[in-house]
Amino acid sequence: MFSRTIATRFATRAAPAVRAAPALRLVGQRAYATAKNAPLAEKLSVNGDRLWDDIHYTAQWSAPSPGGVSRLCADENDKKARDWFKEQVLALGADYKVNATGTQFALFAGEDNSIPPIAMGSHLDTVATGGRFDGPLGVIGGLEVVRSMKEQGIKPRAPIVLINWTNEEGARFFPLLGSSIVYAGRSTVEQAHAATSNDASAATMGSELAKIGYVGDGPNTFEEFPISGHFEIHVEQNTDLEKAGKPVGWVEGWEGMTWYDVHLEGEDGHANTYNMKRRKDALVGASKIVVELEKLAYDHNGRTTVTGLHSRPWGACNIQSKTKTTFCLMHKDGAALEKMGESIMEKVQSIAWAHGLDVKTERTVHLLPGNFWPEAIDCVKRACGDKGMGSRTLTGHDSTMTTTLVPTAMVFARARDGVSHSPKEWTDKEDCAESALVLGRAVLNFDEYLKQKA
Amino acid sequence: MFSRTIATRFATRAAPAVRAAPALRLVGQRAYATAKNAPLAEKLSVNGDRLWDDIHYTAQWSAPSPGGVSRLCADENDKKARDWFKEQVLALGADYKVNATGTQFALFAGEDNSIPPIAMGSHLDTVATGGRFDGPLGVIGGLEVVRSMKEQGIKPRAPIVLINWTNEEGARFFPLLGSSIVYAGRSTVEQAHAATSNDASAATMGSELAKIGYVGDGPNTFEEFPISGHFEIHVEQNTDLEKAGKPVGWVEGWEGMTWYDVHLEGEDGHANTYNMKRRKDALVGASKIVVELEKLAYDHNGRTTVTGLHSRPWGACNIQSKTKTTFCLMHKDGAALEKMGESIMEKVQSIAWAHGLDVKTERTVHLLPGNFWPEAIDCVKRACGDKGMGSRTLTGHDSTMTTTLVPTAMVFARARDGVSHSPKEWTDKEDCAESALVLGRAVLNFDEYLKQKA
Repeated sequence: MFSRTIATRFATRAAPAVRAAPALRLVGQRAYATAKNAPLAEKLSVNGDRLWDDIHYTAQWSAPSPGGVSRLCADENDKKARDWFKEQVLALGADYKVNATGTQFALFAGEDNSIPPIAMGSHLDTVATGGRFDGPLGVIGGLEVVRSMKEQGIKPRAPIVLINWTNEEGARFFPLLGSSIVYAGRSTVEQAHAATSNDASAATMGSELAKIGYVGDGPNTFEEFPISGHFEIHVEQNTDLEKAGKPVGWVEGWEGMTWYDVHLEGEDGHANTYNMKRRKDALVGASKIVVELEKLAYDHNGRTTVTGLHSRPWGACNIQSKTKTTFCLMHKDGAALEKMGESIMEKVQSIAWAHGLDVKTERTVHLLPGNFWPEAIDCVKRACGDKGMGSRTLTGHDSTMTTTLVPTAMVFARARDGVSHSPKEWTDKEDCAESALVLGRAVLNFDEYLKQKA
Repeated sequence: MFSRTIATRFATRAAPAVRAAPALRLVGQRAYATAKNAPLAEKLSVNGDRLWDDIHYTAQWSAPSPGGVSRLCADENDKKARDWFKEQVLALGADYKVNATGTQFALFAGEDNSIPPIAMGSHLDTVATGGRFDGPLGVIGGLEVVRSMKEQGIKPRAPIVLINWTNEEGARFFPLLGSSIVYAGRSTVEQAHAATSNDASAATMGSELAKIGYVGDGPNTFEEFPISGHFEIHVEQNTDLEKAGKPVGWVEGWEGMTWYDVHLEGEDGHANTYNMKRRKDALVGASKIVVELEKLAYDHNGRTTVTGLHSRPWGACNIQSKTKTTFCLMHKDGAALEKMGESIMEKVQSIAWAHGLDVKTERTVHLLPGNFWPEAIDCVKRACGDKGMGSRTLTGHDSTMTTTLVPTAMVFARARDGVSHSPKEWTDKEDCAESALVLGRAVLNFDEYLKQKA
């Protein structure tokens, strides 16, 4: 069935340059008319107990992390979660494929399989200190939608594909969005396989996926396997819904984020004896950059985070001569984000100069603020009804890759205290269920939209 | 012969508490009368070419480090250097032993083997970014002295023991002075074996020494194997000799140094999305401590170095919730050193408080400033003659352990620009030769001193 769905309809969109920022897509009609759900969407319900049970059942596949999930891309727990996913979708009659970057596709027939499928996707792998919802809720929520549709005899016109994207977080292998970036034509399978481990070991995403048997035949790109649209549930990771008392939300767009690596190189020397004034201490330089970054966030009303500082040489008695500092800057405004970048790059240069350090900087990821597709947002908004509100995500997701290709929108589930990437991450059972219902209805609304448009 | 030399004479000194600071030993008669060398000392010469060749020959056993030596304790290169040392001393007729912490002892008979031997010692293992002289010059210089004595038929009254101490640097396993601290009764074999790797791997000094076959039978402590005195050549690691145009120096004492580990623990959270003001970012806290430490050095006219900063979790998208920062403070004055420690501990607490971080601090090493033994210094001073000058070392050495037990002094060799723990470390051939001659003469002067005293 995979071959049958390779339509050329969406394949004509040119893939932008690798790692370039997605084009800013402004929503022209923000005040989209709220209408009813499509008839099939109105008919749908979901099983909140089953969804909740599966979220917690699959949380067993985790490195020790009380209350949370630590399931790094391509580790042994990730393999178990992937195997479970495969088993579930095969039991539902999926046409199942794994691509070269490990992403799992489960395709379910629609009434007209010449239409590219409507996708629901997120990720089952997590950060090292992950919660139980960021990622898994999106995939298992999608699974719950498919199960409910089957049980309730709801068959959309377009086929449906449920996707478990690999390495969205970039927690083990950098860069993030490790598979959807290839799907969107902004990177290649080879580049993704070469992504090195953040723990400074020799492991690569390619080597580790191969170890767990998850380097498949494809499809790898949108050209090979086009979709009609992409919908994703995610925990909000912010407090807008919680403050407004809304269990769900439609996501209008994302804030901008940009990532840098700064390598400083000074000089080796004896920790105890070497003259303070002659030193070229890379760690002092790196620490001053970290301190400046905190100030930068407050000065610009944005956010900044240093996500890694590696300092060498190892050992007890040496001035640190080499550091690698990885950080991200976030802002809702693209121009302000650029200004933050320029400001910190100036500081980096002046700190390096003051300490006699060689400096190498690299902007590894750059995502300007943008908006999802109005027609997709509208499908989510109608699915939310009175229970939802509009919001924005403060980070990137696989959906920020698919939105460069096809109508894409996201569903937010209310989260406690805006905490995520932490075992403390929490979304109530009822809110999980509500978000899955919204996802299913949004997909069915979009199916109806495609039908009307055709 | 090892058993025969176990005299009880020096064994009665009580071993101080583990890791406590050595008692401050003031030199009462700093203006020690310069006298002639002992007759045997006057007779001695050394072979500077052979010494130079061996320094550079043994530098081949190194991880790649152009111009330098990277030979970490108990790595495969350290094994090769140790095997070479064993071969050399056996060829000279040594009674050879390895102790449980890997230290190699090569005992050479004197005229009266009831006297505890006079020791020459330093280390063949290096820091990761080591030069060719820090450590190796002391051991190979001592080897050159023994070779020359043999060739020239110079047999001292006391036996001589040449020692290759393990893990003086603490570069791979912390704490530093890893074997001499056990010898001095300030730690145990068990504690030394349990010393963990600075690279955060599971390796311990015990496991890695066992792998290269260097866990021997002893002697492990001064009680088991007393010596009469200890002499060590070292590159100066400062510029006093260079500025004065002196090739060698006698070392009167050492500056104080104290080491801390600071563990900060904050909270996990999403790097892009989490509210700046709610964060408990351990890396921001640690970086502020690093910046304060630089300031501390200048405020107190001392020196400070952060020798390691470990930050977790690994990964691209997480606020850093755990850091371990290792640093040292140095000052020539004990009271000022204490004040520096108090000052930074206050800063650590206030930074931790401001960022909502849990903090755990540990003072791992504490060495107050002190002086070597006047009778031993005098032996070096006479050996230096007009070519030398008095100086102080700015760090600890195996000699700062033996000086808690027996008369100890050090010989400085002029170094270029005060640089060490760097491939740029350099001492000219003539200065190496001069330092070895001074070492040999100092030992023979001390032998004469013991004879006069007896």
